[in-house]
Amino acid sequence: MKKVTFALVLFFITLSHAFAESGYRLWMRYDPISDEGLRKQYQSSLRGIHIDTVSATLKAASEELAMGLSGLLDKAVVPAGTANFEAGSLIAGTPASSVIIKDLGLGARLTAVGDEGYLITSLVHQGKPITVIAANTDIGVLYGSFHLLRLVQTHKPLVKLSITEKPLLKHRVLNHWDNLDRTVERGYAGFSLWNWHLLPGYVQQRYIDYARANASVGINGTVLTNVNANSLILTEEYLPKVAAIADALRPYGIRVYLTARFSSPIEIGKLKTADPLDESVKKWWKDKADEIYRYIPDFGGFLVKANSEGQPGPQNYGRSHADGANLLADALAPHNGIVMWRAFVYSHEQPEDRFKQAYNEFKPLDGQFRKNVLVQVKNGPIDFQPREPFSPLFGAMPKTPLMMEFQITQEYLGQATHLVYQAPLYKEVLDADTYTKGKGSTVAKVIDGSLDKHTISGIAGVANIGDDLNWTGHLFGQSNWYAFGRLAWNHQLAAEDIANEWTGMTFSNVTEFQASLREMMMKSRENLVNYMTPLGLHHIMGWDHHYGPGPWIKDKPRADWTSVYYHQADEKAIGFDRSASGSNALSQYSPQVAKFYGSLKTCPPEYLLWFHRLPWTHKMKTGQTLWDELCRRYQMGAESMDPMIKGWDALSSYVDKERHKQVSMLLRIQKDEAWWWHDACLAYFQSRSGLPFPAGVTPPKESLQFYETKNFHFVPGI
Amino acid sequence: MKKVTFALVLFFITLSHAFAESGYRLWMRYDPISDEGLRKQYQSSLRGIHIDTVSATLKAASEELAMGLSGLLDKAVVPAGTANFEAGSLIAGTPASSVIIKDLGLGARLTAVGDEGYLITSLVHQGKPITVIAANTDIGVLYGSFHLLRLVQTHKPLVKLSITEKPLLKHRVLNHWDNLDRTVERGYAGFSLWNWHLLPGYVQQRYIDYARANASVGINGTVLTNVNANSLILTEEYLPKVAAIADALRPYGIRVYLTARFSSPIEIGKLKTADPLDESVKKWWKDKADEIYRYIPDFGGFLVKANSEGQPGPQNYGRSHADGANLLADALAPHNGIVMWRAFVYSHEQPEDRFKQAYNEFKPLDGQFRKNVLVQVKNGPIDFQPREPFSPLFGAMPKTPLMMEFQITQEYLGQATHLVYQAPLYKEVLDADTYTKGKGSTVAKVIDGSLDKHTISGIAGVANIGDDLNWTGHLFGQSNWYAFGRLAWNHQLAAEDIANEWTGMTFSNVTEFQASLREMMMKSRENLVNYMTPLGLHHIMGWDHHYGPGPWIKDKPRADWTSVYYHQADEKAIGFDRSASGSNALSQYSPQVAKFYGSLKTCPPEYLLWFHRLPWTHKMKTGQTLWDELCRRYQMGAESMDPMIKGWDALSSYVDKERHKQVSMLLRIQKDEAWWWHDACLAYFQSRSGLPFPAGVTPPKESLQFYETKNFHFVPGI
Repeated sequence: MKKVTFALVLFFITLSHAFAESGYRLWMRYDPISDEGLRKQYQSSLRGIHIDTVSATLKAASEELAMGLSGLLDKAVVPAGTANFEAGSLIAGTPASSVIIKDLGLGARLTAVGDEGYLITSLVHQGKPITVIAANTDIGVLYGSFHLLRLVQTHKPLVKLSITEKPLLKHRVLNHWDNLDRTVERGYAGFSLWNWHLLPGYVQQRYIDYARANASVGINGTVLTNVNANSLILTEEYLPKVAAIADALRPYGIRVYLTARFSSPIEIGKLKTADPLDESVKKWWKDKADEIYRYIPDFGGFLVKANSEGQPGPQNYGRSHADGANLLADALAPHNGIVMWRAFVYSHEQPEDRFKQAYNEFKPLDGQFRKNVLVQVKNGPIDFQPREPFSPLFGAMPKTPLMMEFQITQEYLGQATHLVYQAPLYKEVLDADTYTKGKGSTVAKVIDGSLDKHTISGIAGVANIGDDLNWTGHLFGQSNWYAFGRLAWNHQLAAEDIANEWTGMTFSNVTEFQASLREMMMKSRENLVNYMTPLGLHHIMGWDHHYGPGPWIKDKPRADWTSVYYHQADEKAIGFDRSASGSNALSQYSPQVAKFYGSLKTCPPEYLLWFHRLPWTHKMKTGQTLWDELCRRYQMGAESMDPMIKGWDALSSYVDKERHKQVSMLLRIQKDEAWWWHDACLAYFQSRSGLPFPAGVTPPKESLQFYETKNFHFVPGI
Repeated sequence: MKKVTFALVLFFITLSHAFAESGYRLWMRYDPISDEGLRKQYQSSLRGIHIDTVSATLKAASEELAMGLSGLLDKAVVPAGTANFEAGSLIAGTPASSVIIKDLGLGARLTAVGDEGYLITSLVHQGKPITVIAANTDIGVLYGSFHLLRLVQTHKPLVKLSITEKPLLKHRVLNHWDNLDRTVERGYAGFSLWNWHLLPGYVQQRYIDYARANASVGINGTVLTNVNANSLILTEEYLPKVAAIADALRPYGIRVYLTARFSSPIEIGKLKTADPLDESVKKWWKDKADEIYRYIPDFGGFLVKANSEGQPGPQNYGRSHADGANLLADALAPHNGIVMWRAFVYSHEQPEDRFKQAYNEFKPLDGQFRKNVLVQVKNGPIDFQPREPFSPLFGAMPKTPLMMEFQITQEYLGQATHLVYQAPLYKEVLDADTYTKGKGSTVAKVIDGSLDKHTISGIAGVANIGDDLNWTGHLFGQSNWYAFGRLAWNHQLAAEDIANEWTGMTFSNVTEFQASLREMMMKSRENLVNYMTPLGLHHIMGWDHHYGPGPWIKDKPRADWTSVYYHQADEKAIGFDRSASGSNALSQYSPQVAKFYGSLKTCPPEYLLWFHRLPWTHKMKTGQTLWDELCRRYQMGAESMDPMIKGWDALSSYVDKERHKQVSMLLRIQKDEAWWWHDACLAYFQSRSGLPFPAGVTPPKESLQFYETKNFHFVPGI
């Protein structure tokens, strides 16, 4: 193909995208590789696609490879069966789907990759050099196909391939906090993808594209409904609709889960009680499970929020969380379904430090849960703050598989408008050492089951996906969906490497571009911590909608829904004493961790006010007072936005106009909001400390009262 | 360019659209013309684009022509200034923007097209054959550019062009019933386009694509907010956001309007009254208007729903609608703004036939409105039913410019799922003869001002646009947006011709395809009337959400919110007697119309039960009884779906897979719902008439009780 023609093709693709560069394609962009040399290399190593499409999943793999490689390699690739392979062929399949794959004798290597893993390997068969994607299962082949496409999208060499992959976690699940009226709790990307009214008859292509995106990173489950649940989803009005979504996602290896409202037996079953030990209740859930499985034979199971923030639960009947979880687990067990029971609970009555409550409630239940129950624990003890220490439950319940719950949607991380790459946050938690079985007992090893030899394991991410054209509202929200999926598959990946993959697939593989963007992404979360909650401050955001700063929030129905409860700032000191002299939450950690955070000598400044209440004049390791350092961190955070904007603007030649402009506009909003946080928090904390701002710190633009009385209508996500 | 290369380009465009054939591009599709001969003809008649982009609007025209022609003609076209024109050039501009255009001496022809019209003409200048788009204003040039693109998109010849266009109506406006929380009243295409929370900082490309689509059909105004209004939109929290939208739409000639809640002076102005004759109220609105115009110098004005369905209004203070409208008109007049005051009112107290109330209330006010007030009248006397006689207000207020209000969103026409091409409905109303100034006094002539010599005129369409990927939920909803715009520009166009344009631009110009689709579209509304409300039945839909049939609805807060009020079916008879023996609503029409509808000899069966209460055994012109014909019409309506489905399925080779599937799935839902209407209405009316179904009529599948107790949750649009 002549160069001029190729340029023309590119030109038309650009043109035809004049309307379409919204970001809808996510990281699954298959535009021709512009480096002609590289493209020709790929063309010669991938001369044809050979796959026997004997199942819907293999058909999906075939279609994806055809679409992807035809686009990337700039030549029409029509897939054929594996029998017709030749030198340079790409062959994909399982020993069951393809005689050729069977004949390759991949035995032991294949056995090692298990149910979901795959091999990608270069070899010579019948004298012909070929590339092989092999797996024990069809879904493994699909995962391998996406991996191969990623190699091409990120311009990796395809010679002498010997890739062995299998996921480290079994259940890799998105949690949609989507309501049946299509509002999304803590959703900042428009409204729910699930158009319940038009289901089951109308199955949008978008559901399939959603499945493709998830499969491309190995996500294998999705909870369709909000943890603040509505029983209606379990009725015969809605189950056929759920089944239609399940049918659409199934070829991509994604199981559907629902949230189960604990009081459903009363609300839709017309029983008088939902007591988990009541026989009629047990029967009701058993019948309900049987009914669901008639609609959805591979239904995943239930996610439950019980006795938390007003949701009903077993404690309404004097029963434990284990009683509640086991009730549902027994109903699901005959169908191989699981229960994901959330540990995010805190009592309405107890004045105990909220930090401690989940541990207090759940640790005693260790060993009492059925085998098909996972207890789902938020990464930190409070609630998805910009930075939290890991939850003390990790490592504390060795007899129970604990599932990680990360929040991908940015409830506390700038919501719709802040560019925050969250892989560093996820990694910080996963790599944290619980010391519960000695050094190296990382949170990752707790949740992947390796520390305590569990056979089931899982991770959940609260989705940031809505019906916005680009799925996630903020284009960089896509990177968090992507990173969550990649880490769910392999928590050992580095955040930087995931950033490289994502930027390469989403924008460009030019080294300078990627280096610059990677740096921006890697810094972004720390910037946000600085302008929102430096030095271990937490939970000081706006009331209810959680939009913007609100360190002044007080006098609410519960003390632990206020900000003053968490920062405890007065004229003398600031911070929450969780050492032995305070709530002693530290005692919930293993002694090594408790000592590390508990000592002012070792406690990192990032966690300081999580655990210590200190005078404003406390001398920090930098030699500054706590007050001065707090002010300077706010300043540093707010000032980080100018270089970020400048950095992004400088990259405009690597990014199409529409997507560049999207991010550019949002960065400017983020800058305004970063300064808003800076101004409001400094004004407030100065009203406590009474101290002057140190040199180099910009005083707030407006009075404290101005920030306190700022009012917003119709903030999304509630 | 070689044929093989072209095929390749097409291939890649198809590929790159694997993700993008959602329908997002609407009718503005600029993919290469596949007929090579035709493409070459166009290439030689349009060798280059020459336009002096001295304004944002001319820049928009230039960009649209470049994008459109480069795509359609399959060659890169880079626009240049008009000075550089050559043989075969396309020259666009105004006498002010271009010396060349000025030199063409188009004087009288240009004068004739007014402020918004344009010429497209083939001529020879300085010895060179050229094509010219000329207008007096920049927006005329943009409209002409879209016209030229349409000619190419629909494969029309470009030789010896001599096109003169100008709009017949001045204000061509969409009404968005969009709430500030992004829900859309009677919206079935997702949620509101307007992301208020992210405005003014985040201006989506979608706003600009929305503007392009509107400009392409000549729509020149948009009311952003619901007629059931929220005063907040008029505060300084929201006005900068409105201004940002106005800035985005301005280059495309689209003015922004807002709905004004009549009680705003109290709610946001802290006054004690909203009495239109109160001086403080007058001052408040004047100041408010001044403030709005500081944000938006070309703000269009207000749309008001007052004293209707619970909205506050002047009658709360014993004042008339004219007093209310004039209050706002006086505030807007210094800025050339207008008031669109809705006549959709019916009293909470009066037991009078709802049909008559708008007329009774408004006719006496004729002559009392300020010059910048238009009274906006729904097409029929009740509420956007599948078929209504024209509102008797048309022609009855000669001293007042009346604005037409059509409903594009399908509140009563199948909502999200029914394929109904509405141009025949619009035309039926526009072409209806009011006889108020003798034969030929059509509704169209009333609203375009020609009958009564008004200088302002207008038409409004309640938008069917939401944030769905394809804008309108149902792909064929796009045809109604398109048709509304085209008829707003020129109400003399034929519905068939508009269908041809739309199908050609949206899908394919192949004659057989267009003929088949046109026939399907042209029949679609009559099919719906048959399976929903044949023979002049009206207002018998489900309660509140208006989804599905509900002829049994009774005992509601108001009689005229029930179905039994409208159909009056009992064991003997059915229909609403609006002749002299009944409510005498017919007396509101001119004598000729009253006589026509009033006589059983002349009243068309389509309007029969609108005006007459008749025994079930009444002999119809067909020789059948009324009961039998009613049943048979329901049958005919329901049975119309199979051929429609078959017809669409047969067209699959002309439509890309994704869009074909969208429609295919919806047609199957429509079929189910058509039979649901058939079954429920026949079961209900049989329970009244006690008569057997005639031969050939399928009995209802379920009992009447089954249909009456059907319950739905979270139906969209309320």
